Amino acid sequence: MNSLGRHILAEFHECDPAMLNDPAAIEQAMKEAAEASGATIVQSVFHMFSPYGVSGVVVVAESHLAVHTWPEYGFAAVDYFTCGEVDAGAAIRCLEERFAAGRVTSREIERGLLGVSGEGPGAFASPGSEEPAGVLTGPGNREPAGVLTGPGNREPAGVLTGPGNREKT
Amino acid sequence: MNSLGRHILAEFHECDPAMLNDPAAIEQAMKEAAEASGATIVQSVFHMFSPYGVSGVVVVAESHLAVHTWPEYGFAAVDYFTCGEVDAGAAIRCLEERFAAGRVTSREIERGLLGVSGEGPGAFASPGSEEPAGVLTGPGNREPAGVLTGPGNREPAGVLTGPGNREKT
Repeated sequence: MNSLGRHILAEFHECDPAMLNDPAAIEQAMKEAAEASGATIVQSVFHMFSPYGVSGVVVVAESHLAVHTWPEYGFAAVDYFTCGEVDAGAAIRCLEERFAAGRVTSREIERGLLGVSGEGPGAFASPGSEEPAGVLTGPGNREPAGVLTGPGNREPAGVLTGPGNREKT
Repeated sequence: MNSLGRHILAEFHECDPAMLNDPAAIEQAMKEAAEASGATIVQSVFHMFSPYGVSGVVVVAESHLAVHTWPEYGFAAVDYFTCGEVDAGAAIRCLEERFAAGRVTSREIERGLLGVSGEGPGAFASPGSEEPAGVLTGPGNREPAGVLTGPGNREPAGVLTGPGNREKT
């Protein structure tokens, strides 16, 4: 069976507490990690909590790299969802160094397993397009042949519907 | 053992393909799901891909709710990371309805398991603060007693370090 995406969950223990409470440093480390993996950064959102701790997400092409930190426990939880040919291990190693982690564990979970009865690319065509789904090169690869600009990555179309909005509802 | 966070991974199969290709509708559904779970929305980032598919993240207080869709497979992968007292099940049920999913599976993974040798709240104090970590009410609860404004949630301090930036490096 093929899966549409991979989701890497990594736990960073015994990290530098000061690092884990510095949102600017964490954002920089997360961007470096995304780049180290070969991903294309689309946007990032980071914020810190009172009294301490940082959460943030780097949205990369067709996936995301998220972090939540507990400086008081020297702990950071990272997850990297990807559908492309990125080297998630390189991202984890980059963060291990930046966080000065003493111990790292990770697991990989396949998301969107195909091969279940009746599943496969359907007759879906995007609105306003006559392009049939049949131009897909095969299950587990969502790029029509010849449209790829990079290995295994969909390109963001630039339609960010709500960047920078800050809602408290 | 206590865990610092919970990570719910949910797979939505046999969804409405048109819905899964509509970034505005998905963003609205994800915000409704976050609110249905009792979470406080901090920020959201959504974008769509060519030829189809949507990715997005709703950053909520101390956690995130992310989605990646494959309209051509009628499939959406959702993950909800939370440290607070949110009702993640309510979010999943909301999305099941909004996506018109025929089949939903989910699993919950504990993140940041405590009880490992030597782990516990350390002597960390936030920069510029004399507040010792000892005011924490206990492992697995990161809010100092009396500072909570809601059940189990840290409050975002409003220090969004990079909202709305769009980087292509």
